[in-house]
Amino acid sequence: MTKLNAGETLKTMQEKSALVHHITNWVTINDCAQIVRHWGCLPVMAHAKEEVEEMVGLAGALALNIGTLTLELIESMLLAAKAANRKGIPVALDAVGVGATKLRTEQAHRLINEAKIDILKGNAGEIATLAGVEAEVRGVESISVGGDITGAARKLAARLGNIVAVTGAADIVSDGNLTLEVAYGHPIMGRVVGTGCISTSTVGCFVTTGKDYLRLTAEALACFGVAGERAAAKAMGPGDFIPNLYNQIIEMRRNPDALKLEAREI
Amino acid sequence: MTKLNAGETLKTMQEKSALVHHITNWVTINDCAQIVRHWGCLPVMAHAKEEVEEMVGLAGALALNIGTLTLELIESMLLAAKAANRKGIPVALDAVGVGATKLRTEQAHRLINEAKIDILKGNAGEIATLAGVEAEVRGVESISVGGDITGAARKLAARLGNIVAVTGAADIVSDGNLTLEVAYGHPIMGRVVGTGCISTSTVGCFVTTGKDYLRLTAEALACFGVAGERAAAKAMGPGDFIPNLYNQIIEMRRNPDALKLEAREI
Amino acid sequence: MTKLNAGETLKTMQEKSALVHHITNWVTINDCAQIVRHWGCLPVMAHAKEEVEEMVGLAGALALNIGTLTLELIESMLLAAKAANRKGIPVALDAVGVGATKLRTEQAHRLINEAKIDILKGNAGEIATLAGVEAEVRGVESISVGGDITGAARKLAARLGNIVAVTGAADIVSDGNLTLEVAYGHPIMGRVVGTGCISTSTVGCFVTTGKDYLRLTAEALACFGVAGERAAAKAMGPGDFIPNLYNQIIEMRRNPDALKLEAREI
Repeated sequence: MTKLNAGETLKTMQEKSALVHHITNWVTINDCAQIVRHWGCLPVMAHAKEEVEEMVGLAGALALNIGTLTLELIESMLLAAKAANRKGIPVALDAVGVGATKLRTEQAHRLINEAKIDILKGNAGEIATLAGVEAEVRGVESISVGGDITGAARKLAARLGNIVAVTGAADIVSDGNLTLEVAYGHPIMGRVVGTGCISTSTVGCFVTTGKDYLRLTAEALACFGVAGERAAAKAMGPGDFIPNLYNQIIEMRRNPDALKLEAREI
Repeated sequence: MTKLNAGETLKTMQEKSALVHHITNWVTINDCAQIVRHWGCLPVMAHAKEEVEEMVGLAGALALNIGTLTLELIESMLLAAKAANRKGIPVALDAVGVGATKLRTEQAHRLINEAKIDILKGNAGEIATLAGVEAEVRGVESISVGGDITGAARKLAARLGNIVAVTGAADIVSDGNLTLEVAYGHPIMGRVVGTGCISTSTVGCFVTTGKDYLRLTAEALACFGVAGERAAAKAMGPGDFIPNLYNQIIEMRRNPDALKLEAREI
Repeated sequence: MTKLNAGETLKTMQEKSALVHHITNWVTINDCAQIVRHWGCLPVMAHAKEEVEEMVGLAGALALNIGTLTLELIESMLLAAKAANRKGIPVALDAVGVGATKLRTEQAHRLINEAKIDILKGNAGEIATLAGVEAEVRGVESISVGGDITGAARKLAARLGNIVAVTGAADIVSDGNLTLEVAYGHPIMGRVVGTGCISTSTVGCFVTTGKDYLRLTAEALACFGVAGERAAAKAMGPGDFIPNLYNQIIEMRRNPDALKLEAREI
C-alpha cells in the first residue's frame, strides 16, 4: 500500500487558494465551480477565445470537460491548454462521452494530440476508447469494455507521458510506470449526475499544490471518495447527496490531519 | 376514469435504462439530467450539430426545450428530431415561452412543421398560441388564455397527428380523439423554476418504454405530480423542493406496485 | 441612519410580479431564475439577439451579468440594454471578473459607455478597475484594491449618472451624491459560488417597483443580507446554504412589516 499525504495537500491547497480555470460543460458548471470553492480554491469559468489564454495565466490549473462540446469550445480549450503548457500549469481533461459519437472521440484525440493533457480522466469506456480498446459508451455512461482497462490506462499514460485516471467502483491512476488503485466512494455517487465532472474539478484543485500529479490525482480521488462516503451516510437519497457532499468537504478541511488514506499499487 | 399502469411502466423503464437525449435550455439543464437519472434512465445533453444525429440514434427518446433558444440551437434540434423521426424514436418538445416573442412562436412552429414532434407540451398560454387561440405569455409564464384550452389542445393534436399536453393545476393530454385530464401535483410546483422542464424530461423517460404515447405521457405527468405532492409534504419550502422531489422519485421506484393512478376522460 | 422601506417594497414587488429579463452567465443561471421567482417576480432568461429587444419590452427590469461572456453575448446585452433605455426600464449590470482579463474590462467599459447602466454592481476589485483605481482581481474574486473604494464608487456614479454598488463585508451604494453603507449578511455568503450573481438578480427585482434606484438597491442588498443571515443560522454548511436562503426569502415575504432595516450615510 502507498500512503497518501492528503492532509498536507489539503493544507497547502487552502494556503495557496489558487485559481482553477474551467472550460467545462453547461450541465454541471455550477457544481464544478462550487466544489472548487469548497476545497478552498477559487473557481473561474471562462470560455471566450479572446480571454482564455490570459485567464489561464492567472490560474494554478486548467480543468477541461467536453460534456457539452462544440467545435468552438474545443478551439477555446486548445488555446487555453497550449497557453497552460507554455507556463507549466497543469491541464486536466474529463473525456465525457468519448466513444459515444465520432465528434467526441475525434475531438478528444485532437486535445490530447495537439496539447499536453497532464491528467486525462474518464470512465472505463471513455479511456478504453482513447486507448484503442473496444468499448460501448451510451451517452456519457460506460456500458462495457472489451479488454483489460488497467493495462490500457497504463499504456496510454506511457504513450502520452502523462497521468491517466479511470474512475469507477475503484479508481485507477497510472503514469505508465506506477499504477495505483484508489478504492473509496459509495455506489450512490454513480446515481447522481455530475460526480464525474466534480471529481475532475477536485483533481484540478489538488494539482495546484505541486508537481507529483500521480500522487496528487490519487489523493484527489481518495478525498473525493471519502467525502462521498460520509455524504452518503448523511443524505436522505441521491436528491440531497451533492449538498451533503459539499458540507463533508468543508468538514474534511477542518480536520485534515485525521485523514489516513491509502492507494494500492497494481 | 381511465386506469394508468404507471407501476408497470416504471419497471420497464428501469429495465431498459434507455438514453434520453436532450437539447435543452441552460437554466434547468442540470435538473433535466438529474431527473432522468432518478427515473432510472440515462441522460445525455448534446447539442453540437456535428453529433446530434449520431447521439439521438443511441437514444430511446429525444427531449427538446426552447427555453434559451438560439437559431443555432434550433438547427441542432431539427437535425436531431428528423434523425429521430427516421428511426421511430419519440420526440418531445417543451414550447417554453412561445407567445412571449415572435422568435419563440416562429421557431416552435418551424419545429412542429419541419419535424414530427410526437409529444408537444406547454403551459396553457404556450399551447394556445400554437393552436391559434389568443393568449398572453409573459416570459415563460402563461398569464391568460382567451378561449377553450382543452378544445384547442384537441384540435392541435388532431391536426399534428400527435400528442398535445397542457400543463397546469390539472394537466390535459390529448391525441385529438381521446383527451385525458391528469390531476396530481401541488401548488408549490408552480413556485419553483424548472418543474415544467423536468416534467418534459419525465415524459421523455416514460415514452422510451412503448408506443402508446398518450397513455405514457399521462402516466409521466401523473407520477411526476404524485412525486411532487409527496415532496411538498417533506420540503421546508420551495428552496428545498427539488432535492425532495428527486428523493421521492427514488422512493416511488422502490414500490411501483403501490401506485394506483387514474386519468379522467374529458 | 437612513430607514429603508423594504417591507413596502416587498409588497409592491409581489403585487406587480414583474418580469425580470436576464442575460446572464451559465454558472448561476438557475440560481438567478430561482431567486427572482422566490422574491415574487417572474424570471426569463433569453439571450438570442433576435428576441432580446422584444423580450425586454415585456420586462420590469433587465439584469446583465458577464460571468461567462462572449462577444456574441455582449452584442445581445447591448441590444437589450439600449431597448430597455428607450423604454425607461432599469438595467443592472454585474461586472463579474472585470480586471481579471482585458476582455472583461474592455467589454464592461463598452456596456457602460454604449448603453445606460442604471445600476452597476461589482466587488471592490471590479468597481475599482472600472473607476480607474488599481486593483487585483483573480478570476472573479477581488484580491486587493489600491485606494479608497468608497470614493471611487462615488466618483464613478457621478460620472455615469447612475447607481454604483460595491458588494463586500458591508455593501456600498452611491448615486454620486448620497452614499449608503448597507451592513447585513454573513461570511458564509462569500464561501458559496453565486451569491454575487443572485444579489444582482435581487436588485433587478427591487427596481421593478419604482424609480428611486439608490434606495431600492440598498433595500435589495439589505433584504438579501438579512435573508442570508437567517439562512446561515439554518444551514448545516455552505453546501445547503442556497436552498435555505430561498426558504428564508419566502419567510421574509410572509411578514414584510417585520422588516426594520437601515442604511448608514457615509
